[in-house]
Amino acid sequence: MTIPSPGPFTGRTLDGLGRDLRSGRTTSAELTALALDAIAGGAELNAFVTVDAAGAAEAARRADEELAAGIDRGPLHGIPAGVKDLIMIAGMRVTMGSRHFAGHVADADAACVARLRRAGAVVVGTTTTHEFAYGPTGDRSAGGAARNPWDPSRMTGGSSAGSGAAVGAGLVPLALGTDTGGSVRIPAALCGAAGFKPAYGAIPADGVFPLSRTLDHVGVLAATASCCLLAYQALTGARLPEDPVGEVRVGWLEPGSLFPADPRVAAAARAAAGQVEGETRMAPEVLELFRETYLAIQSGETAAVHAGRLAAAPDLFDPEVLDRLRQAAELPAWRYVRALDARRELEEHAEALFGPYDVLATPTVPILAPPIGAREAEAGGERIQVRAALLGMTSPWNVLGRPALTVPAGLVDGLPVGLQLVARPGGEARLFAAARRTEAGGQG
Amino acid sequence: MTIPSPGPFTGRTLDGLGRDLRSGRTTSAELTALALDAIAGGAELNAFVTVDAAGAAEAARRADEELAAGIDRGPLHGIPAGVKDLIMIAGMRVTMGSRHFAGHVADADAACVARLRRAGAVVVGTTTTHEFAYGPTGDRSAGGAARNPWDPSRMTGGSSAGSGAAVGAGLVPLALGTDTGGSVRIPAALCGAAGFKPAYGAIPADGVFPLSRTLDHVGVLAATASCCLLAYQALTGARLPEDPVGEVRVGWLEPGSLFPADPRVAAAARAAAGQVEGETRMAPEVLELFRETYLAIQSGETAAVHAGRLAAAPDLFDPEVLDRLRQAAELPAWRYVRALDARRELEEHAEALFGPYDVLATPTVPILAPPIGAREAEAGGERIQVRAALLGMTSPWNVLGRPALTVPAGLVDGLPVGLQLVARPGGEARLFAAARRTEAGGQG
Repeated sequence: MTIPSPGPFTGRTLDGLGRDLRSGRTTSAELTALALDAIAGGAELNAFVTVDAAGAAEAARRADEELAAGIDRGPLHGIPAGVKDLIMIAGMRVTMGSRHFAGHVADADAACVARLRRAGAVVVGTTTTHEFAYGPTGDRSAGGAARNPWDPSRMTGGSSAGSGAAVGAGLVPLALGTDTGGSVRIPAALCGAAGFKPAYGAIPADGVFPLSRTLDHVGVLAATASCCLLAYQALTGARLPEDPVGEVRVGWLEPGSLFPADPRVAAAARAAAGQVEGETRMAPEVLELFRETYLAIQSGETAAVHAGRLAAAPDLFDPEVLDRLRQAAELPAWRYVRALDARRELEEHAEALFGPYDVLATPTVPILAPPIGAREAEAGGERIQVRAALLGMTSPWNVLGRPALTVPAGLVDGLPVGLQLVARPGGEARLFAAARRTEAGGQG
Repeated sequence: MTIPSPGPFTGRTLDGLGRDLRSGRTTSAELTALALDAIAGGAELNAFVTVDAAGAAEAARRADEELAAGIDRGPLHGIPAGVKDLIMIAGMRVTMGSRHFAGHVADADAACVARLRRAGAVVVGTTTTHEFAYGPTGDRSAGGAARNPWDPSRMTGGSSAGSGAAVGAGLVPLALGTDTGGSVRIPAALCGAAGFKPAYGAIPADGVFPLSRTLDHVGVLAATASCCLLAYQALTGARLPEDPVGEVRVGWLEPGSLFPADPRVAAAARAAAGQVEGETRMAPEVLELFRETYLAIQSGETAAVHAGRLAAAPDLFDPEVLDRLRQAAELPAWRYVRALDARRELEEHAEALFGPYDVLATPTVPILAPPIGAREAEAGGERIQVRAALLGMTSPWNVLGRPALTVPAGLVDGLPVGLQLVARPGGEARLFAAARRTEAGGQG
């Protein structure tokens, strides 16, 4: 799995970088300079919106001073990181990928950025987001589409498009994203990175521009599941056992029961999952209820965020985003209320679906990264909608707020495939244990 | 304040009835027979939908046996009570005042009915509700309008219309109601009874047919505030101090800042409130936010309850209810989501409005009971909508879930006026202390 143009962090783990920093083989200043150079050199990917070279250099200098003085903030100390362009960074331009906020400067750090800094990481800049995070393709943003490092004519997936591109291309070893229906996992999968959407609320969303408040999750993108785990622990204070947690039962969730899948993609993910304890399927009526519930909750909450702008300055929206927002604004309230009820019902369906398994495995995305701008594609002999396909495997786990992870699962036609692993509530230790057990998790 | 046709429980308190029961001056069987006779004799009021004479007689017999055996369930022991016709009573016909449920028999007791029975009360029957509780006038119900015992050509108010008529006419000394925007307090006030809407959730709503789940409150109607307090304590296990709880600061909330009021009604309520510590006003923009928030939450939640019936059998609804449901079904979801936000904002506005006061006093309803069927009226020289007027003083306290009480405040033109008292969260003891202090609370 070799990327055409490797970056300075391609093949590097947070663990390895941390060892190099502490052994004196490198410095945060050096890593940060590598990142800044690579970002400049990889400009065609459009992974970053705003780069704070001076601020990053200063933060790296402090990180190095602290390490030299014996102050060690842990695994993220001195690590350069990108932050999605709708997560507030004090004093920086944060645009939400929108012309509405073209000149917007955040006045305070989001909670997750404050935690990132406390953990010693070096914020190098903001990464491209699909406009207002409202789209899983990552190709509609005020600053233009992010481009897939494995083939720049293809989309990164989104909405954390630049975070996926930046980590996938090895420009930075770590990035923050947000995930409302798959927006961390989709670009991670399509760009060859790992990505973790923790349980709802595990990383607080304060200071993150909302898309859909009961579905929005803050997550992390990095090279491997183990890197994601380090970052997750650093950002939450969670401590998961690194040793086996006893038997972990993994079930293969038949992807076709969620969405028509490219058989090559399904096969690659299945191979990466390795030996599993069994297979399961989502019943069509449960799938339909997941889809309706996701759409209703997201539509109502997103339209509430943008009602003022929709009325006052609709022309500043990207036309596709505008069209979707207008549809969302028409959803009747009673459907939203029903969806809140359905959520409780879906908890029970999910319990039945998990059955004897601790972790369910699927492809993260059932298709390969489509060309930028594509809205229709083919999968499994069917004509499919690209947005629906991208979200098809991921969005149910936002409805339920369950922890979900994507890990690289090899290449098909030279493009990355992701394996998604989903846990029960509180099942993070088993989730990462399952990742270590898979073919995919064993690489990295 | 003498009603034209007094009933057997006119002028009787739960306390007095309890003394008579325990001294042997009466029995539950006798009280129940009085209630059943009065209900039959007062049929023109249409206060009751279904009467369970045999079940009530049997429950009364058991209550008497228990008392004779020294088993005393407290202040409701042996007391005949009416239950609004959308609160489930096992084995009884419960119709929601709707042709959709004309033959519906409940299979289990609602939680509040189970508590009522455990407290020893005797359920005599179901009381008329406005269809699906969706209206404060009480004059649209499958079994016809309830009629005001002070003038049967006038409405009772609703939606707990029959509970108001039954207690106001002295047919029973106690009734259960539900209050989503004022549906306990409005009919209590217009029929000359006291009515208490406890804090949200204080009496569980399980087994109550929903109108708007985050606004629905179960409450009680009885002759006086003290009777309501006895019933509330019996149904919740709450124990409030009967002695003064220190100084209780009452503020007069200028009714005109909520809705145009009949000046005679306002004056009667103000007189009943007695000496107050000061006056306050609701700002127009806060009022507007209360109105919008109430309407959005109720519309979304109510339409969610009835969406299936609206699609499948619209003609079974009363035409006015149908028209309102269809409007409610069109409310966009984003307005509901915004309303949930506004609710939090309104908490802060309410704190400012209460300011130094523990309890706010207003008229319960700003007008006298209008003729049955009336939808427009005059108040303070303005043409007003009857539904909006009825709800004008009461609905804000449902948005916030605050405890609110109405007590009789005399007559204007031979029709009852209510004084509403509203407390801060947790302020029940001060609320009832304020009621005892008022002119109104001192009577009864």
